[in-house]
Amino acid sequence: MNLPKQVIIKEVGPRDGLQNEKEEIKTEDKIEWINQLSETGLSYIEMTSFVHPKWIPQLKDALEVSKSVNRKEGITYAALCPNMKGLERALEADVDEVSIFMSASESHNKKNINKSIDETYPVLKEVVDGAKQAGKSVRGYVSTVFGCPYDGHVDKQQVIDVCKNLFDMGIDELSLGDTIGVANPKQVSQFLDLIEGEFSKDQIALHFHDTRGMALANTLVSIEKGYYIFDGSLGGLGGCPYAKGASGNVATDDLVHMLHEMGIDTGLNMDRLLDAGMYIQDKINKPLPSKQMNICSREE
Amino acid sequence: MNLPKQVIIKEVGPRDGLQNEKEEIKTEDKIEWINQLSETGLSYIEMTSFVHPKWIPQLKDALEVSKSVNRKEGITYAALCPNMKGLERALEADVDEVSIFMSASESHNKKNINKSIDETYPVLKEVVDGAKQAGKSVRGYVSTVFGCPYDGHVDKQQVIDVCKNLFDMGIDELSLGDTIGVANPKQVSQFLDLIEGEFSKDQIALHFHDTRGMALANTLVSIEKGYYIFDGSLGGLGGCPYAKGASGNVATDDLVHMLHEMGIDTGLNMDRLLDAGMYIQDKINKPLPSKQMNICSREE
Repeated sequence: MNLPKQVIIKEVGPRDGLQNEKEEIKTEDKIEWINQLSETGLSYIEMTSFVHPKWIPQLKDALEVSKSVNRKEGITYAALCPNMKGLERALEADVDEVSIFMSASESHNKKNINKSIDETYPVLKEVVDGAKQAGKSVRGYVSTVFGCPYDGHVDKQQVIDVCKNLFDMGIDELSLGDTIGVANPKQVSQFLDLIEGEFSKDQIALHFHDTRGMALANTLVSIEKGYYIFDGSLGGLGGCPYAKGASGNVATDDLVHMLHEMGIDTGLNMDRLLDAGMYIQDKINKPLPSKQMNICSREE
Repeated sequence: MNLPKQVIIKEVGPRDGLQNEKEEIKTEDKIEWINQLSETGLSYIEMTSFVHPKWIPQLKDALEVSKSVNRKEGITYAALCPNMKGLERALEADVDEVSIFMSASESHNKKNINKSIDETYPVLKEVVDGAKQAGKSVRGYVSTVFGCPYDGHVDKQQVIDVCKNLFDMGIDELSLGDTIGVANPKQVSQFLDLIEGEFSKDQIALHFHDTRGMALANTLVSIEKGYYIFDGSLGGLGGCPYAKGASGNVATDDLVHMLHEMGIDTGLNMDRLLDAGMYIQDKINKPLPSKQMNICSREE
């Protein structure tokens, strides 16, 4: 097996996880949770999204959360910004990194952003330019890389074109998202073979959802091909197994457990990670779907 | 990727799944469920266990279940037999195949069978001989191949010795069990490299539990190494995510979904499989933990 010595985990739970939680979580609890995450060894935390509260009421406190978190040296605190309005607020909060997003499939992009793919580029370009002028690094998310809930199959060349266009704008890192958790290991393997040499592996993250249970298998395929940056949501937050429509990110804790068991360093402290998981599980008041949280909850 | 055209799935849910369900399921419901499983394209169903009802009250109806199932041409209907008493009853029910079991670790064997490993061999030898004399094929299960809940690490040479001793007794197939779901992909890869050439891949099944979410990743590693027989429990029956101590088999439906998506044939009909899953989910009266059943239940 071709395994790396180290893998970098980027925690997106406070944004990608929480945005799927229907019940409102108190601002102070989000801040405390992110502060706990800061003590786990993470080097990257996406704190929130500066999307209009009309779309995601759960994250209407983006500014307060971003401003109030105890920023720890060595950690990149990021926030999602869909447009210039969002960027202004993110800069007001002085986030370390700005993230932007779009879809590789027309229908998902249209439903999610209300624009065609071509209409989206200038909006994002403005955000990237603004972020760069403010001295911020930028992360791009491409959704529906491995399948779209509306279009089904997504053309691989279209995915590559979107990625190239985002890098041409000047983004620093790109996260390839299996937004609806349909990717299978063979598909991931073939796609990564296709883009081999196109982009630097230092600038590509993989963002798997575990809707169909294949996220860890897909991670395995990716690390064997030399990728070493992965997104996760602690406890699988955002994807309750028994809630309609929820399809959560791969659980950071399950990902970390597998990597550690394989002798791969993540820099993360599992006990602290699970403590932070227990904290947010208590706040959402229902069991988190990850296997590690399960084992942990049983032992309490 | 080195992928097979076809994989054989052996359904152990009616035995390994049900034996972990605390609430009693009606005999007629078990029979109906197995009859439904017979219509899914499965070639192998382990129907029950002829273990003493004192140990597993849920399977006290082993004889009635085995006798009453509508046996379908082309399907091997098996039952677990811990000893001669169990074999007698299995033969009375005229099962197609007899399965025997032991652990690769002393402590688990002692706790489970109340004998040392060395004391277990003669008991099993008697069962194998008896089954063979009756013209039955025999499957052996080795538990705790990748880790023991009591001993922790299990010596690989000890595992190999147990496997060899069982094959020497005349068993036809051996199922290597990650009983507590601790195996990681690197460990599976290394173990399979170690036994490369020792046994025929036509006679080795892999039996993963999904306690820590690594079962599909472990399956992927195994098929890439040429193994093509896997055990599963429909819906992940036997492993409720929120029940203390339960650590279910990998869900047949999640396994089949991944394989099909990768273009690997299993001979199984997914719709019928999920229908059978919905049937038993209704009988156990709680959500089955598999991802496919989840998606299926949400759509109902």
